[in-house]
Amino acid sequence: MADTGWPGCTKSLKGVILDLCGVLYDSGEGDGVAIPGSIEAVKRLKESDLQLRFCTNETQATRETFVAKLQRLGFDISVSEVFPPAPAAIAVLKERGLRPHLLVHDGLLPEFDAVDKTNPNCVIIGDAAENFLYQNLNEAFRVLIGLEKPVLFSLGQGRYYKETDGLKLDVGVYMKALEYACDLKAEVIGKPSPTFFQSVLSDMGLKPHETLMIGDDLVNDVGGAQYCGMKGVQVRTGKYRPSDERHPTVIADATVDNLAHAVDAILGQRGCSA
Amino acid sequence: MADTGWPGCTKSLKGVILDLCGVLYDSGEGDGVAIPGSIEAVKRLKESDLQLRFCTNETQATRETFVAKLQRLGFDISVSEVFPPAPAAIAVLKERGLRPHLLVHDGLLPEFDAVDKTNPNCVIIGDAAENFLYQNLNEAFRVLIGLEKPVLFSLGQGRYYKETDGLKLDVGVYMKALEYACDLKAEVIGKPSPTFFQSVLSDMGLKPHETLMIGDDLVNDVGGAQYCGMKGVQVRTGKYRPSDERHPTVIADATVDNLAHAVDAILGQRGCSA
Repeated sequence: MADTGWPGCTKSLKGVILDLCGVLYDSGEGDGVAIPGSIEAVKRLKESDLQLRFCTNETQATRETFVAKLQRLGFDISVSEVFPPAPAAIAVLKERGLRPHLLVHDGLLPEFDAVDKTNPNCVIIGDAAENFLYQNLNEAFRVLIGLEKPVLFSLGQGRYYKETDGLKLDVGVYMKALEYACDLKAEVIGKPSPTFFQSVLSDMGLKPHETLMIGDDLVNDVGGAQYCGMKGVQVRTGKYRPSDERHPTVIADATVDNLAHAVDAILGQRGCSA
Repeated sequence: MADTGWPGCTKSLKGVILDLCGVLYDSGEGDGVAIPGSIEAVKRLKESDLQLRFCTNETQATRETFVAKLQRLGFDISVSEVFPPAPAAIAVLKERGLRPHLLVHDGLLPEFDAVDKTNPNCVIIGDAAENFLYQNLNEAFRVLIGLEKPVLFSLGQGRYYKETDGLKLDVGVYMKALEYACDLKAEVIGKPSPTFFQSVLSDMGLKPHETLMIGDDLVNDVGGAQYCGMKGVQVRTGKYRPSDERHPTVIADATVDNLAHAVDAILGQRGCSA
């Protein structure tokens, strides 16, 4: 399909934020697979004068394990460039003196090793996948319903994502389940939370209008970035669905076939006159 | 606690509908346990001139298995008096030519033995309990997302219920999960669906104002019955919580300690002048 609506000259652009799963690679068996052209595209961005960060709602592994996987797939990425929700959640716990009951993937547990989890006064759910057993959801529910002021943190609010063997339910689905069970509203940590995007902008020392977000999730990547004042571009890989281009409220600044096309457009326009 | 606000003279009353779990018995290990006084209360209603039916959102067993359990607990109940959602769902499938993918409790499966389930064009979820595995919810999601016009039936919409070892998440929680995942609205079969209550009234040949519903679920039993024009009484057993008596929208016509108290009030007032 033709790339549509590229957001004009990118000369004033100083930074790019990339989503990971569905943009750089498709997850699945083992490490998953790199999306064609994406390794080279990341390399070209790194060689440019643009700042580059990676903003993900990945919560199935610690940041270290996750980045090691991306490196094995061939990407030139380091831990300090990657922003997932778990470290942001730990900062919030510390700030508010909260002790979590965790319903997360086994791979994420080490991230919370140093966190006090005794006598929990809040619940954190992440993309627990196979850990979303009836018994485990029940246990999280009982912690919440037993609290005078129940607090639920959700590491993202995605509906589903794509693995190599098909679509998989994401954490947002279980967030909605617990919200209904306990008649409460979860606090989302991760995209599309403005606080989360802001922490990435702060790290780059850039303003929203100087930054472009590229993702496969129209609502959480593109809409979330636009809400903060950034440009938002959607790629037609990962969880992209054609109906995204007819979404009633979120309209991407551009829709391109894949990350390589996006980087072509960004770098191709660097020489234009503003 | 004192019984409150009994709905005046019950002389014009011709029928009573009882919820089962939480009113007659508490579920749990084995058959669960009868709530004190409830066996005798059912007996007294049966000996009166009132019609009696049982309306339940129970979906963990076929009607036959379920009624056999109640009989073992000591209740004088027959299959034809009990109205659960599954037979109502099967009638809807027939009427609309739909073939279901089932996400239900193993115990309910025989109810659907004669139903064509090949190449499904809708999903039915019941209180699947331990069958609510990530993989099974994912499978139901994939069926729905693959349909041009996804149809989701939920056998009830309860948030949670009480077993002898504590509160358990009910089907409504997973209904909300799939609604969010697929961006659709489920069709509820069972309480509080007016169609479901109407089928019980039709079976008794009674009008709503001649009928009283007694349940432990304020929204689905009491509110659902009131919406249809019946009186609704809540018992302080089962999933009852004190906060129910301060609910912002549903106000029971009476709140009584248990079924025995309710039957005392009904039969004690039969001789009053209208």
